[in-house]
Amino acid sequence: MERERIDDLGINGYQIIQKEQGFCFGMDAVLLSDFAQVKNGGRVLDLGTGTGILPILMEAKTKAVHLTGLEIQPEMAEMAARSVKLNHLEDKIEIVEGDIKEASAIFSHDSFDTITSNPPYMIGQHGLKNPSETKAIARHEILCTFADITAAAKKLLKNKGKLFVVHRTFRLSEILCQLSKDGLEPKRIRFVHPYIDKEPNIFLLEAVKGGKSRMTVEPPLIVYQKEGKYTEEIYKIYGMNPEE
Amino acid sequence: MERERIDDLGINGYQIIQKEQGFCFGMDAVLLSDFAQVKNGGRVLDLGTGTGILPILMEAKTKAVHLTGLEIQPEMAEMAARSVKLNHLEDKIEIVEGDIKEASAIFSHDSFDTITSNPPYMIGQHGLKNPSETKAIARHEILCTFADITAAAKKLLKNKGKLFVVHRTFRLSEILCQLSKDGLEPKRIRFVHPYIDKEPNIFLLEAVKGGKSRMTVEPPLIVYQKEGKYTEEIYKIYGMNPEE
Repeated sequence: MERERIDDLGINGYQIIQKEQGFCFGMDAVLLSDFAQVKNGGRVLDLGTGTGILPILMEAKTKAVHLTGLEIQPEMAEMAARSVKLNHLEDKIEIVEGDIKEASAIFSHDSFDTITSNPPYMIGQHGLKNPSETKAIARHEILCTFADITAAAKKLLKNKGKLFVVHRTFRLSEILCQLSKDGLEPKRIRFVHPYIDKEPNIFLLEAVKGGKSRMTVEPPLIVYQKEGKYTEEIYKIYGMNPEE
Repeated sequence: MERERIDDLGINGYQIIQKEQGFCFGMDAVLLSDFAQVKNGGRVLDLGTGTGILPILMEAKTKAVHLTGLEIQPEMAEMAARSVKLNHLEDKIEIVEGDIKEASAIFSHDSFDTITSNPPYMIGQHGLKNPSETKAIARHEILCTFADITAAAKKLLKNKGKLFVVHRTFRLSEILCQLSKDGLEPKRIRFVHPYIDKEPNIFLLEAVKGGKSRMTVEPPLIVYQKEGKYTEEIYKIYGMNPEE
């Protein structure tokens, strides 16, 4: 068995299990957990949950009544379920092993208030040595395309339910148009820039099922104020004290 | 006749005629003239040229061989033509009176390297007292929608020709999808923020006819460093010295 490690999440004393050599959650997941909203008592689904990082962080940050994480890779789903157990969250969070392409057969239609997804960013399998690797599946659109995410969200969200995704800026136009096409209207976007004077590399996006066409572009989210030093906003999102 | 004034454009000694009570060009036109690109010897068309500000500024800033401004309102077209004459640019810039919806019948197809447009931002005529007013026509989609712009650009641009537009952020998703639908692929976008920590209100966009789907989001363009004081980049774009 591959070696695992346990990391502290800096909130509620929660921890997460990750493979030492496998795909580990990144800043994008943490930023998405902060950007996403759930109404009090809402039901949440995370499509492609991986380590389970999003449901676990969102359980801590919101007043959702229940959160589900869907994960296609058996060993990832099993490990995410162990992380849920480690934090005694079995009553609030369920990890389901399954395919996003079959999500609309697995879950009830019009049943979630919020759907989150930190999907694979890269198109196709170019330059991949081993497309069956866990890391490759998390990063490349091998088992799931963005259109699979929007097709699932379209069916599973309640009317006016919200989809929150994080994605790469180079696919901005394609992502927005795919959402609109599936009746998930882009409403709010925030670009994440490594430095204030640099191009953003990722964006956080909120789309509303059956929403009207009108967008808000939020002020930029800046990651570093200088090399090795995060901005105050990033320290706050991570629940860290910059003086430590 | 309405009273006119003549303003200096801060480049090449060029001047522009504007109506004292009418629609005057704004910062968006100046920013677009800086964002837009023309290859050396390229042919440029400005859709809805108004005062003629864009062709006149771009004549100064690029090595375009010829620029055309299309304007539907007779009194605006006549005034723009006088501005061209005032700057002795009749050999380089032509102002044509006509409708954007008929542009593909007025000009040869696949004949422009660059098309620019600073179109009306507002949807419909809500809250308008007099939809026939010059200002209203420049600001509201009364005589022309964004789809009319993309339909014209699709036909009149050469393959790989570039369309540059400035628009409001609240219409971002709709604008990107309309461009894609008409085969004008969004390639480069820059958001304009009044202040560094404020939401952007407008964006500058480059789309390429027949381009591949891959976008660059540029670093934010900030207008003010503090109240009443522009950022260095804005002073530079305006050709102004901040110490004056």
